Amino acid sequence: MIFTADQIAKALNGKVEGDKNTEVQTLSKIEEGIAGSLSFLANPKYTPFIYETKASIVIVNDDFKASKAINCTLIRVKDAYSAFSQLLEMYNQVKMNKTGISKQAAIAETAKIGENVYIGEFVVIGDNAVIADHAKLYPQTYVGENCKIGENTTLFAGVKIYSDCVIGKNCTLHAGAVIGSDGFGFAPQVDKNYKKVAQIGNVIIEDNVEIGANTTIDRATLGSTRIRNGVKLDNLIQVAHNVEIGENTVIAAQTGISGSTKIGKNCMLGGQVGLGGHINIGDDVKIGAQSGIISNIKDGQTILGSPAIDVSNFIRSSIYFKKLPELARKISALEKKLTDN
Amino acid sequence: MIFTADQIAKALNGKVEGDKNTEVQTLSKIEEGIAGSLSFLANPKYTPFIYETKASIVIVNDDFKASKAINCTLIRVKDAYSAFSQLLEMYNQVKMNKTGISKQAAIAETAKIGENVYIGEFVVIGDNAVIADHAKLYPQTYVGENCKIGENTTLFAGVKIYSDCVIGKNCTLHAGAVIGSDGFGFAPQVDKNYKKVAQIGNVIIEDNVEIGANTTIDRATLGSTRIRNGVKLDNLIQVAHNVEIGENTVIAAQTGISGSTKIGKNCMLGGQVGLGGHINIGDDVKIGAQSGIISNIKDGQTILGSPAIDVSNFIRSSIYFKKLPELARKISALEKKLTDN
Amino acid sequence: MIFTADQIAKALNGKVEGDKNTEVQTLSKIEEGIAGSLSFLANPKYTPFIYETKASIVIVNDDFKASKAINCTLIRVKDAYSAFSQLLEMYNQVKMNKTGISKQAAIAETAKIGENVYIGEFVVIGDNAVIADHAKLYPQTYVGENCKIGENTTLFAGVKIYSDCVIGKNCTLHAGAVIGSDGFGFAPQVDKNYKKVAQIGNVIIEDNVEIGANTTIDRATLGSTRIRNGVKLDNLIQVAHNVEIGENTVIAAQTGISGSTKIGKNCMLGGQVGLGGHINIGDDVKIGAQSGIISNIKDGQTILGSPAIDVSNFIRSSIYFKKLPELARKISALEKKLTDN
Repeated sequence: MIFTADQIAKALNGKVEGDKNTEVQTLSKIEEGIAGSLSFLANPKYTPFIYETKASIVIVNDDFKASKAINCTLIRVKDAYSAFSQLLEMYNQVKMNKTGISKQAAIAETAKIGENVYIGEFVVIGDNAVIADHAKLYPQTYVGENCKIGENTTLFAGVKIYSDCVIGKNCTLHAGAVIGSDGFGFAPQVDKNYKKVAQIGNVIIEDNVEIGANTTIDRATLGSTRIRNGVKLDNLIQVAHNVEIGENTVIAAQTGISGSTKIGKNCMLGGQVGLGGHINIGDDVKIGAQSGIISNIKDGQTILGSPAIDVSNFIRSSIYFKKLPELARKISALEKKLTDN
Repeated sequence: MIFTADQIAKALNGKVEGDKNTEVQTLSKIEEGIAGSLSFLANPKYTPFIYETKASIVIVNDDFKASKAINCTLIRVKDAYSAFSQLLEMYNQVKMNKTGISKQAAIAETAKIGENVYIGEFVVIGDNAVIADHAKLYPQTYVGENCKIGENTTLFAGVKIYSDCVIGKNCTLHAGAVIGSDGFGFAPQVDKNYKKVAQIGNVIIEDNVEIGANTTIDRATLGSTRIRNGVKLDNLIQVAHNVEIGENTVIAAQTGISGSTKIGKNCMLGGQVGLGGHINIGDDVKIGAQSGIISNIKDGQTILGSPAIDVSNFIRSSIYFKKLPELARKISALEKKLTDN
Repeated sequence: MIFTADQIAKALNGKVEGDKNTEVQTLSKIEEGIAGSLSFLANPKYTPFIYETKASIVIVNDDFKASKAINCTLIRVKDAYSAFSQLLEMYNQVKMNKTGISKQAAIAETAKIGENVYIGEFVVIGDNAVIADHAKLYPQTYVGENCKIGENTTLFAGVKIYSDCVIGKNCTLHAGAVIGSDGFGFAPQVDKNYKKVAQIGNVIIEDNVEIGANTTIDRATLGSTRIRNGVKLDNLIQVAHNVEIGENTVIAAQTGISGSTKIGKNCMLGGQVGLGGHINIGDDVKIGAQSGIISNIKDGQTILGSPAIDVSNFIRSSIYFKKLPELARKISALEKKLTDN
């Protein structure tokens, strides 16, 4: 897709400064600009790059004043950063605008398929599954029996959803994510074998949720593992059976949440955090990367460490951890001094 | 599937109290009971829910005495918990009772396929692979050349098994698990490049093993990476080349085991544990979540921390870690006092 | 494939000692040797096994002197270890020598396919993708639009590559790896929702790179996430958007690298390491397993811990961590003594 400076300025309600016919076909960072690309300047720290960039068009704020000659065409807008974000999104929507149902997909006769969907090659959709309007199922995805996939939701290549799970509207599930695998429940037997506890619940993912690549969410033993509206999960996260994650909570990569733990809303969890089972995390909680959580956490706390403690306590203690050999020496010196006395 | 209270009572060798014709079609927790569902009451903590539940049938112990009016039909049995577990299992067996070979699977002519198997759409089975009776291969699984899949074993959607690997009987491998990928072996060269060491061994998984979603088990360089009878691995676990895991050992999610390490039998490892390479873990060892193991561990130990130490030592030291700023202040005060003296 | 001692000796430029017609069809470790297998003896620690091994042929160093009777045929070479490595590699190359394009693959008409490639069943190749000569795409892999796969590169079963990504020559991507999923970028809104930041960059993987099973590499927001020549990534690693990893850097399993972080060349990272975002790791840096990195690290440092500090400092401090209860007691005793004085 090729656009002119004029077309873009019109879309953004901006003014062209330079050649109105300058053409671009991709987007770039100003410091990595290449010919034929469109970039932006918002952060004054990057101003020097505008005099050197090879980008063909640069979006700038209304009040930008050049102090040297500029080679590219400018488009002046009220807020360069948000104008550029808007373009990013438009670009992405055009790219992701797939529709049509592949003849190489295997769709059960009893499945119900909405309007204007995309169903790629080698997709499998089980009995009685419901795929709502505008949903996009990339190639090689698997949707088990009785699943529901909401309107406008995208499953990227190879997503696997076990039977009976429900995915809301406007969700994005990235490649390799697994939804609804069995919870890890085994009853110890007298001969030290384990007997599997049947896992017959499901997973319910509400609306506007993003699930990262190769993240796994186990089905509940009974009832539902539940991911609330607006939750964002990064890649390679483990969510165990009967977990609940509250609205708009954001969790970074490789974090693991053990069975039946509940996390409140508007929380932020760093990467590689581990949460034990059957604990409650309040609302607005912040947990630093690599923390280990073994007990309930109240609303609004910020914690860090394994086991996790108040963040400022952890930082101060870590400084002294580094000085432990010195502290031990001081204690020995004191002991010696007192004995000598 | 719809069942009446009478049918269920007969299956469980119990007695109906109330309407014998009450019908149910699903299972629920007593505190989340919905009309048309069957629930159970075993833990006295949950007794108050039996007076409010919307479940249509509740299984209770023989000796249960109601202290208020009850709206649902009861089934009295000797042990409500185990009766319910039995139902869970029956329910699951019926659900998972798939058979038949999809015409959209790609099965090598030289592969040997047993009786009564399920082979879903877009499954690939390589040359000389053997799929035993009653095995279930869900859609989009891949079984490489010369692999053996034992009787009654289930591979959920998208499992990938590289060539020459052997999976025993009654195993369950969850979606996205990868078995037999190359071990991570590279020989450093003088020019700082690395040369791959060919990985020509395999993975042997014995009987009654469960492997979680997106867990990865690398093939041995030579010989076999071996997962013994009854082992249970949770999701997103990494098992490196030439590792051995002993009978009935259970490992929680996101744990990683480095090359050539041996773990004994009946061990329990928490989540996000890391084990170094070439170490030996004895039998009946318990390792707490997020521990780091860098040396051999004897039979029966319980350890925690990174590096891991005896669990009670770790807990006590963690309490003092939190107090390190205070301890440091005390040392300074002592030094000052002694100097002042 | 069956080979005689004579054939192998000729290939390795060695001398047979014993029956020139001894036949082997597989490779084994000397301590696990089975009839019909070929093994080697390089490490003197393993010498006792040569008198007991059931391997049919054993490769030994020129100067090996038997002190007892030996049952197997020997092949004497200059360097037994490297001769055996050479055989391992030959064995693997023969095994992996697949070619041909499956009729059950879905290849876009606009895709460009090289000579002598292998494209397995249920592979999907998108519009304008380029697959170079000798590339191998195992079954169920997905290569999005506009991707480039370099010469002699292997994608094992189920690898997923999103649109616009570039993979170099001689790379190996293991099963379940995901390349080019969206970076984890969300802008907080006033109502506590998050708005997705469009991720329109790509991933560029240079030559001779190995990517482990179920590892995930996110595309850049703008520009490229870049994995340089010779990098080796183990299984279940997370590489976030806009990360750069320098030449010949090697990273063990389950490590996570946050957005925009740059890692230098010739580094070695242990397993389960976590790196924060927007930090710079120099060249030749070594980071111990489970470390947490939150600030820039200079060339050549060796660090460990969370937060990571100099490795010898960490080891000494860990010893005192274990003794913290004792140190605290000593401080109390000193306080008591001084008060008593």
